Amino acid sequence: MRIGFRPSVRLAALLVAFGMNAALAADDPLPSWKDGASRKAILAFVAAVTEPGSPDFVAVPGRIAVFDNDGTLWCEQPMYPQAVFIRDRLRAMAPGHPEWKREQPFKALLEDDRAAVAGIAEKGLVDIVTATHAGMTSEEFSALVRDWIATARHPRFRRPYTRCVYQPMLELLAYLRAHGFETFLVSGGGAEFMRVWAEPAYGIPPDRVVGSTVRTRYELRGDTPVLMRLPEVDFVDDHAGKPVGIGRAIGRRPLAAFGNSDGDYEMLRYVTAGPGRRLGLIVHHTDADREYAYDRDSLVGRLARALDEAPARGWTVVDMRRDWKVIFPAEE
Amino acid sequence: MRIGFRPSVRLAALLVAFGMNAALAADDPLPSWKDGASRKAILAFVAAVTEPGSPDFVAVPGRIAVFDNDGTLWCEQPMYPQAVFIRDRLRAMAPGHPEWKREQPFKALLEDDRAAVAGIAEKGLVDIVTATHAGMTSEEFSALVRDWIATARHPRFRRPYTRCVYQPMLELLAYLRAHGFETFLVSGGGAEFMRVWAEPAYGIPPDRVVGSTVRTRYELRGDTPVLMRLPEVDFVDDHAGKPVGIGRAIGRRPLAAFGNSDGDYEMLRYVTAGPGRRLGLIVHHTDADREYAYDRDSLVGRLARALDEAPARGWTVVDMRRDWKVIFPAEE
Repeated sequence: MRIGFRPSVRLAALLVAFGMNAALAADDPLPSWKDGASRKAILAFVAAVTEPGSPDFVAVPGRIAVFDNDGTLWCEQPMYPQAVFIRDRLRAMAPGHPEWKREQPFKALLEDDRAAVAGIAEKGLVDIVTATHAGMTSEEFSALVRDWIATARHPRFRRPYTRCVYQPMLELLAYLRAHGFETFLVSGGGAEFMRVWAEPAYGIPPDRVVGSTVRTRYELRGDTPVLMRLPEVDFVDDHAGKPVGIGRAIGRRPLAAFGNSDGDYEMLRYVTAGPGRRLGLIVHHTDADREYAYDRDSLVGRLARALDEAPARGWTVVDMRRDWKVIFPAEE
Repeated sequence: MRIGFRPSVRLAALLVAFGMNAALAADDPLPSWKDGASRKAILAFVAAVTEPGSPDFVAVPGRIAVFDNDGTLWCEQPMYPQAVFIRDRLRAMAPGHPEWKREQPFKALLEDDRAAVAGIAEKGLVDIVTATHAGMTSEEFSALVRDWIATARHPRFRRPYTRCVYQPMLELLAYLRAHGFETFLVSGGGAEFMRVWAEPAYGIPPDRVVGSTVRTRYELRGDTPVLMRLPEVDFVDDHAGKPVGIGRAIGRRPLAAFGNSDGDYEMLRYVTAGPGRRLGLIVHHTDADREYAYDRDSLVGRLARALDEAPARGWTVVDMRRDWKVIFPAEE
């Protein structure tokens, strides 16, 4: 009899195990989010668009959520990590360019002059892109980013930038995907910069990364076709560029948008103006102890208009200090 | 006893049913493909990149396959379906534009002058885009396409264009997806034109459609944000534009490319130049009885260089007449 029952016992144990996991997950899908208005808004939105019979139900292929990157998924202070990458590239190349010690915008970047860096205008941006992001193939550029991201450390947190990601947002990404959402990055940062590490860091594959781009050209190197990065800005995926980038790359209006600065304002407007239930959410950096506290006066990630209009537009504002139990993933 | 056994009998029946389906699928994953070199090349490629332990094994997130659309997935003769859409739009708008009866490129399109249509140069293309594809929101344009695709019929086959798709290629798309591939459209056609019907026709969602685009601009209509289509070509996803479009939208070199014309030549080169096992495949239209026979002298879907170089480059050339048991899906 005991032998005869074993398979059923095993089956029962398996069912219990699965059931328990499901129950645990259901009990706490967002363990790093304190109970409060932000968490409640997320749970209510997901229930509204995913529960069969809900008036706002959306079938699986249409559940799209878009996330800004800098300041929304990873730490953007004291400098955008991509600006640090550029500075480090310029430093590595500086011995061959003595003129950079005198010429802007190179001088500002090499000297970590943050106010001057924040003030770099379009012309300076083109000079930087020309010097650091062009004249090589896409695959060569990816290799540079891969080397940098593996070795660079955040100056304050002393850990790789890909570990300066927000644990509550990682849980949110996983929670949305578990409910049939496709999660996209929509960032002012460079698409080819982010694609190198977005999949291991966020579970977001390269084709779901929408970002700023330089023009590329198909060329033959000997008999081998490559994509050459040209010294020309193709597209700036920021402010009003974000909805344009969404239209071009995703091709439908997402259900939810997550941002943290005025660069996300138009994306939040565009997404939350769609019919049916929508979610717009702003991460407000209010925690100088555990991370940074900044909004309307910050050179990096300035947040004013989107914050002011959030109540009237029904956008959820996350108070990082009050809403998040932890900021970063535990040390490995 | 009979009652007691019922659940097990049902379970056994279920298992048999699943087992049989799996066995059937395993026996014949491509039932519309005759046994021959093309079918063998596809099966051998998929085995090489998906079987664990294979030296060419590629893990799931990297299995990308790109498909041209016109002439590769659906019938492009006697006119590209999008050209028919444009002609029908022009005809609907013609009463307000008596000058089109005299002015090119409008005259050629309204009169179905295929040689003149094929000769439309860049300036004419801009005029057409301005007249038919711009000055409205993305959502308004999608609605026009949706209405057209629901009512238009192929002049010879007398069925909707979305039923003039190639049954063997539908099986190939499903077979690749069943083996962990992500399938993308990479077409010279308009991205927003294809996105309307590509998901029901091919199972390819909007964010996996890479195509030609007009510029769009984020605008407020009253207080509602929209994307306005501008009378300006943003990107032409054809010839050398295809690898560029792949780089921008997908962000890694695909493993397999499927095309039918010289417009796919650079994409085939780019994809098959990657390291490890690759598949390049050309659909050669050789079946005037069941579809069309054309290649190097055709105004639409000209195929010469890619065909000439296929043997040396290891590209598989499908002989539609010999390799495909059926062309189109059965009548519904």
